Amino acid sequence: MSESDHSPEPAAARAELDRCDDAGLIRPAPPSTRTADRERLDVWGFADSAFRINANDAVEMTGDRYSLAGVELPDLLPWMNRVLGAQLDRRVVNRSQYPPAIPEPRRNPAFASELQKFLCDDAICDDPRIRLRHGHGHSQEEMYCIKYARPVRLPDVVVYPSQPEHVESLVGAALRHGVCLIPYGGGTNVTHALMCPADEERMIVSVDMSRMNRILWIDPYNRMACIEAGAVGREIVEQLAESGFTMGHEPDSIEFSTLGGWIATHASGMKKNRYGNIEDLVLDITAVTAEGELSRSSVAPRESVGIDHRRWLYGSGGNLGIVTSAIVKIFPTPEVQRYESVIFRTFEDGFAFLYDLTRHSVPPASVRLVDNLQFQFSMALKPASMGPRALKRKLEKLYITRVRGFDPAEMVACTLVFEGSREEVEAQQSALFRIARKHGGLKAGSENGKRGYELTFAIAYIRDFVMEYYLLAESFETSVVWSEVLVLCANVKRRVREEHAARGLPGEPFISCRITQVYSAGVCIYFYFAYYYRGVENPSAVFAEVERAARDEVLRCGGSLSHHHGIGKLRQEFLPEVMSDAMLEWNRRIKKAVDPHNVFGSSNQGVGGPTPD
Amino acid sequence: MSESDHSPEPAAARAELDRCDDAGLIRPAPPSTRTADRERLDVWGFADSAFRINANDAVEMTGDRYSLAGVELPDLLPWMNRVLGAQLDRRVVNRSQYPPAIPEPRRNPAFASELQKFLCDDAICDDPRIRLRHGHGHSQEEMYCIKYARPVRLPDVVVYPSQPEHVESLVGAALRHGVCLIPYGGGTNVTHALMCPADEERMIVSVDMSRMNRILWIDPYNRMACIEAGAVGREIVEQLAESGFTMGHEPDSIEFSTLGGWIATHASGMKKNRYGNIEDLVLDITAVTAEGELSRSSVAPRESVGIDHRRWLYGSGGNLGIVTSAIVKIFPTPEVQRYESVIFRTFEDGFAFLYDLTRHSVPPASVRLVDNLQFQFSMALKPASMGPRALKRKLEKLYITRVRGFDPAEMVACTLVFEGSREEVEAQQSALFRIARKHGGLKAGSENGKRGYELTFAIAYIRDFVMEYYLLAESFETSVVWSEVLVLCANVKRRVREEHAARGLPGEPFISCRITQVYSAGVCIYFYFAYYYRGVENPSAVFAEVERAARDEVLRCGGSLSHHHGIGKLRQEFLPEVMSDAMLEWNRRIKKAVDPHNVFGSSNQGVGGPTPD
Repeated sequence: MSESDHSPEPAAARAELDRCDDAGLIRPAPPSTRTADRERLDVWGFADSAFRINANDAVEMTGDRYSLAGVELPDLLPWMNRVLGAQLDRRVVNRSQYPPAIPEPRRNPAFASELQKFLCDDAICDDPRIRLRHGHGHSQEEMYCIKYARPVRLPDVVVYPSQPEHVESLVGAALRHGVCLIPYGGGTNVTHALMCPADEERMIVSVDMSRMNRILWIDPYNRMACIEAGAVGREIVEQLAESGFTMGHEPDSIEFSTLGGWIATHASGMKKNRYGNIEDLVLDITAVTAEGELSRSSVAPRESVGIDHRRWLYGSGGNLGIVTSAIVKIFPTPEVQRYESVIFRTFEDGFAFLYDLTRHSVPPASVRLVDNLQFQFSMALKPASMGPRALKRKLEKLYITRVRGFDPAEMVACTLVFEGSREEVEAQQSALFRIARKHGGLKAGSENGKRGYELTFAIAYIRDFVMEYYLLAESFETSVVWSEVLVLCANVKRRVREEHAARGLPGEPFISCRITQVYSAGVCIYFYFAYYYRGVENPSAVFAEVERAARDEVLRCGGSLSHHHGIGKLRQEFLPEVMSDAMLEWNRRIKKAVDPHNVFGSSNQGVGGPTPD
Repeated sequence: MSESDHSPEPAAARAELDRCDDAGLIRPAPPSTRTADRERLDVWGFADSAFRINANDAVEMTGDRYSLAGVELPDLLPWMNRVLGAQLDRRVVNRSQYPPAIPEPRRNPAFASELQKFLCDDAICDDPRIRLRHGHGHSQEEMYCIKYARPVRLPDVVVYPSQPEHVESLVGAALRHGVCLIPYGGGTNVTHALMCPADEERMIVSVDMSRMNRILWIDPYNRMACIEAGAVGREIVEQLAESGFTMGHEPDSIEFSTLGGWIATHASGMKKNRYGNIEDLVLDITAVTAEGELSRSSVAPRESVGIDHRRWLYGSGGNLGIVTSAIVKIFPTPEVQRYESVIFRTFEDGFAFLYDLTRHSVPPASVRLVDNLQFQFSMALKPASMGPRALKRKLEKLYITRVRGFDPAEMVACTLVFEGSREEVEAQQSALFRIARKHGGLKAGSENGKRGYELTFAIAYIRDFVMEYYLLAESFETSVVWSEVLVLCANVKRRVREEHAARGLPGEPFISCRITQVYSAGVCIYFYFAYYYRGVENPSAVFAEVERAARDEVLRCGGSLSHHHGIGKLRQEFLPEVMSDAMLEWNRRIKKAVDPHNVFGSSNQGVGGPTPD
């Protein structure tokens, strides 16, 4: 093959080939365990990073992991208090009661003794806090529960398989001894998929996939990689980058979520415009089911082989089996990555820009439009500036508001990530800015763009921080066709305000949205809802009620039940509203057909259920 | 919404809006039935088009539908005879015996009387030739059988539902009266999916979807259309074009195949580089199953709603239910469509070009690479040229062979379709020709490119034509990763030659390949196999043996069982080689779970089977 003769990067290509074995594959070492990357058990994220209120009554973030860290954020609390009609104050704290009382584990001695035949002692764990951590994801209700309430049912043991045979042995033992298995990836689920069914009488085993976290091989020629299901997003990014590649899949949870989790939830990545969503990236899936291993003899770029197990496992939510590895597409690290941002006078203008962008150009890898409230929020997250920097900001603001007439209470921002060859990026940029100008858009700089994306990761820590100051917050998402977007956004916001008012809750609700993905037929919309719960009884349950009402409104407006979070147990009650009876019956029958003893008993999506029949 | 203010085509947009109803939808009239589009029952295609050998011993095509029609093709027979070591001659004919003896239909009076409650008389047909036509697709074995052998089992009646309720009633009646249903779209299947199981004791009902052929609505704003499953490709193209749109899905069978068939076979379109394959185009599917209608309350651009019936129906091959309609993405008619072609010295050069094309540019809507034998075949299909035209061809040939040193026995051709905006197409073209030059490619003109694509449709008629002159021919396809392409092509050709020789078959086999699709990870390869069967006993069975051996070789070389034709009954024997036992068991269990009485008894993919248990 003459390919290497003609490659425009002969040196790079040769270096790549040097790393390949005889089969043309790169076999990376296992990812190294860094103590700095230790995670907290009681709140979101890395142990080195957290928000706090300092002695100056300003918010700051610890550590040096995120760009927000190490500086005072003096505007945040005053802004939040104003918007929420709240009194967030370092002296008024609802101190976390973590850890809660943890129920005693149920024992299944026959199963336990079989476990020891194939797992080392250090791969079996019944530490109460570890069991607790494996019994929840990161929804508002779950996080409130572990800090202020009492979990009813938790995994009785956590096991750590390190090879597919362990998973097969686990399933075999579970079948023989009447045990329930719940797979666990990064623990970032937000649909109660990890929550144990309260009335599950069997021993519940959480199958933690973190030791199956290797990239087994990278095939640079065919641009594929075989990756174990427990591999964490940030490690996949790092390890592929060392060989000059990216998978391009970057959900907001990428620091912690896993390949197996992405498949089981049918995940979407921020840069899907360039790389596709999980179903576009995965070429093959290997999984262990009650019937044995689902696997195939070879991988192909695209196939028509009839009823196809790969398609069933997307969104399966741990109900049908445990994904052990997948073969995914990979892409060369892009020549250029560029952040940008554009501001518009109104959300409607920004929306019209997005619509035109999909109609008259190739949208960049990522494009997001935040509404005015989120725009204000990101302003409130800016550190204090002094000297020339403060002057510059002030002048910029004056220019935008006085000269260009943008209203700070209306304007919105769009953040952008361009990736590709220099040519591609330049063509995309110039087309985009031309369209933006038509809608009155003003370039707001690459720094603001980059900041918008960086904030995503830091903001994830805020929810647990503010929970201790009587604020409950959560996001929920949907997808909807273009024609219904503006109505849906307006109606959901109105509905949340009405529900908040009807309950006489304190202050004002925070309800904001952003458009995070664009498609030919429509968009993905993320909502953020928060409310001040001081003095409210059962605040978490009240939150859930309002969120449920918001979901009802989403469905009324033609929105989907979920764009990428999935159903889990959180949204299963809505399934009869969106699927015909026959579909629901199919789901139940298929579950029963392939897992008759309900060994994968997480009971998500309304199938399975705690007592097999 | 300010979109229309900013649209670059305000007049077009306004014209479009004028055609919309209050819901913003265009509702096209039913497609008109043109007598000119009558199809033949005994051979492929339209009744007005066929090949024949004229009094000058030259081949010609009747009618005026195809560019090949109405001119003598003097080189074709001599070339075929040389390549095949055959004596194709108008005086040596194996005259078609069509129609064969047609078995008496089985009756199920209770079912028949229920039918009459919801179907008009003209929607129920037991005409023997119509029953015959509904019992086969267009594989070599099936077409040989209806002309020279005797079908064992045929549909006992053909019904023509014209609304979803008819399909529901049919399924209900079939369940109550023990009847087997086989859906029928365009009748172009090539995997024996339409073949009736020989030992099916129940009455077999062919459900012809041709009266459910409407585009129910076009939503120009959200770029979606809702189309009934029986709509035929060419009519979808025409009707969408009237509103300025295209679905972009163009399988080689597009003149006859249907949307429902595309979903049931997991089809691929020639222009998938721009528009995607069927799974990329379909947003929602409605289907009738043994359990009732699978349907959803609304359509969204992308969703995560757990186990999802849409994904099960792709490739379901009529086993799980009958697709009644789908919502698909649509795209504006491209500003520019341009054909091109490039020739290369060798297949290896052409392959290296394709590889680089996917690595260093955005491939055009379609790119195909034919090997030398197919290149020669397309030359042999040229009409006689005279005068200045003949001189020009001669000079071109001299330039290519003498000046540029291309060997006519080695050179290959790549045909291209570009679609998009003028800018896009120009950028793609210049990148493509730059890469082609690196691999020694020479531009061969847009006329040759266009001709290559047009030939696809005309060539489909050749198989039935040559069958009467003792030539059996068939294509089969696979997909494979880039690194295995050249080895696979070489090995399959070698294997076919070996199998042909080992059987002492007359002359030489015709075995040729082309690459018809490119992906990031690999390609789709089409093989064409033909042999001269004069004096051969059971020639069709012998053909099938050789094809089976070729398929075995494909699998040995890492190729998939099928890229887009599917499994049907033709390839089900290979399933255990490519899928683990658990996968096959899942397929059986799922079929049994959702269709316990095997009402959809086509018995494809090795599930179901004629006797329900």
